[in-house]
Amino acid sequence: GALGGLGLGLGLWRRRAAMAAGEEEEEEERLRRRFMAPPVSGLRELRRRRRELRSRMELLIMETQAEVCRALAAVDPGAAFAVDTWERKEGGGGISCVLQDGDVFEKAGVNVSVVFGQLSEEAARQMRSRGKTLKASADGKLPFCAMGVSSVIHPKNPHVPTMHFNYRYFEIEEADGTKQWWFGGGTDLTPTYLNEEDAVHFHKTLKEACDKHDPKLYPKYKKWCDDYFFIKHRGERRGIGGIFFDDLDSPSKEEVFQFVQSCAKAIVPCYIPIVKKHCHDAFTPEEKQWQQLRRGRYVEFNLVYDRGTKFGLLTPGSRIESILMSLPLTARWEYMHTPPESSREAEILEVLRNPKDWVH
Amino acid sequence: GALGGLGLGLGLWRRRAAMAAGEEEEEEERLRRRFMAPPVSGLRELRRRRRELRSRMELLIMETQAEVCRALAAVDPGAAFAVDTWERKEGGGGISCVLQDGDVFEKAGVNVSVVFGQLSEEAARQMRSRGKTLKASADGKLPFCAMGVSSVIHPKNPHVPTMHFNYRYFEIEEADGTKQWWFGGGTDLTPTYLNEEDAVHFHKTLKEACDKHDPKLYPKYKKWCDDYFFIKHRGERRGIGGIFFDDLDSPSKEEVFQFVQSCAKAIVPCYIPIVKKHCHDAFTPEEKQWQQLRRGRYVEFNLVYDRGTKFGLLTPGSRIESILMSLPLTARWEYMHTPPESSREAEILEVLRNPKDWVH
Repeated sequence: GALGGLGLGLGLWRRRAAMAAGEEEEEEERLRRRFMAPPVSGLRELRRRRRELRSRMELLIMETQAEVCRALAAVDPGAAFAVDTWERKEGGGGISCVLQDGDVFEKAGVNVSVVFGQLSEEAARQMRSRGKTLKASADGKLPFCAMGVSSVIHPKNPHVPTMHFNYRYFEIEEADGTKQWWFGGGTDLTPTYLNEEDAVHFHKTLKEACDKHDPKLYPKYKKWCDDYFFIKHRGERRGIGGIFFDDLDSPSKEEVFQFVQSCAKAIVPCYIPIVKKHCHDAFTPEEKQWQQLRRGRYVEFNLVYDRGTKFGLLTPGSRIESILMSLPLTARWEYMHTPPESSREAEILEVLRNPKDWVH
Repeated sequence: GALGGLGLGLGLWRRRAAMAAGEEEEEEERLRRRFMAPPVSGLRELRRRRRELRSRMELLIMETQAEVCRALAAVDPGAAFAVDTWERKEGGGGISCVLQDGDVFEKAGVNVSVVFGQLSEEAARQMRSRGKTLKASADGKLPFCAMGVSSVIHPKNPHVPTMHFNYRYFEIEEADGTKQWWFGGGTDLTPTYLNEEDAVHFHKTLKEACDKHDPKLYPKYKKWCDDYFFIKHRGERRGIGGIFFDDLDSPSKEEVFQFVQSCAKAIVPCYIPIVKKHCHDAFTPEEKQWQQLRRGRYVEFNLVYDRGTKFGLLTPGSRIESILMSLPLTARWEYMHTPPESSREAEILEVLRNPKDWVH
């Protein structure tokens, strides 16, 4: 299946010694066909520096993009992904895959970006405010490389939740040549209505991915997720959470990468079964309207608080359409909307105000 | 008319000496009936300190709120304003008047707030970043008082523009007892489609209000408006501008107040004629959709850049519903939407990218 390919793609060039040149080209061709577009760094270049973590991460994000897009297309066969590759004149580029106005999905975007260059002063300031000590050279330059895959999936049916994930890798070279690196990421769910069974399935799948590496990870990153996706001015979380982590740089590059890989592999199995289960559920105009109000809150979180969006808006040469692809097709704001007590709308609000533990 | 009452309301208690007690109470009663709700500081208290600028400003914002609400209700007679008075537990409160889902207006809010207390550290930091030197006392306290009237009016018909205004007064007391004060404000227009005649009428009315005080004001505040309402990540302005100013503290408190009063009086005449002219214009579903996309940009500006919104979200005890009342009822985001060349959609975009002078 699509997920089985992942290990193959990444292990591929490590077995090079055992392969003839012809086989190698064949494998490269296989990767080419599997991805949504040629990787930003080029397959040849990635092969040349195949032992470097940034090459392996770039392959992982390409593979993740392709798998998620194929899985979404499989449940919404009438819709097609528009694939845009773009270059950033300051260095790097990306691939945006967007499905709009499908039968199942209102708007689904899966974006890969691999950018490098000099960190803007504003971005460096923001990183320092997070406790990073970044020693710039005399001319203030801080070479960086950032790559990641990110996605937001907004379905049409209010009984199918919105899902978001993002896995990213960051490298900064300080004046003395020291390289700082870290990973960040997470996967989280934003339902319009609460379905406990779905919540448990989603969290359980993520927990299993984490537990393979360390049983302490899931509880820690589950809480981090609840804390991060907090719409402070509303006193509500954006959704029912999942996992979230940032600035992850221990125990070792290799181990963190393996963990991120497990998380990436869990995306399709934690979400697609929920889509299949509910995409034909009946719904009322009132349920659709509640979905639109929740979409408004989604916009509030993304534009006011989300670090990734802020970083993107501050990075010169960012591709705005790819950053703001996370916004829903439509959203709604009503003054003083309060759902009636004991309604299904009040039920989800309660969980957004007081997050629950879904797996024990 | 409604506007004629303004001078009366403000001049009222200055003529106190010449009035008998009975007449005074009668006048108070007249004000009470004219306002949308009793003023935050109370009519009696306002009368007691009637010579202070903050009292006169509070009367001005109350009067402005009432006039604008009455003018909007007159063009949308089927709709009614919901009037909410609210208290801020840290000090002060406000009055929110909101009309939702009328025949002419989709969402129109006119909000008055009068808040005081201690400036939050975050808010103080933001002010310092604007160049204010604020000397806090040893315990870090900075007593402040902020008041203003603000409004966003989103009509249904895409040929009727959205209008925003905000006039505010700020006082901060430093550790040594020095009081810093300033006024800020502006009125600006956001059309979905360009109508040059409307643009000229709007700007001309504002220019006339400014010119009474100093012919240098309009050009300066027109440019400030174009610069302020800039959606940097889009390279577009939010609308076709108007006037905007902040940190205004010269030539004198009295003169700035008189200027702000002229601006407040210009709100109804600069906007209402445009509403009347177009509120029955025919429109297509495509025009409605373009309006929705422009509403999305409105949300982007307000949540990402707007100082007032940011200040509100940072001020503990703010009334979120009153701050976010500026958001439209509905908005839309499409990936990579680009209007065809030479279309009416491209025409307005051109003006948003390259602001024009509407009055010479």
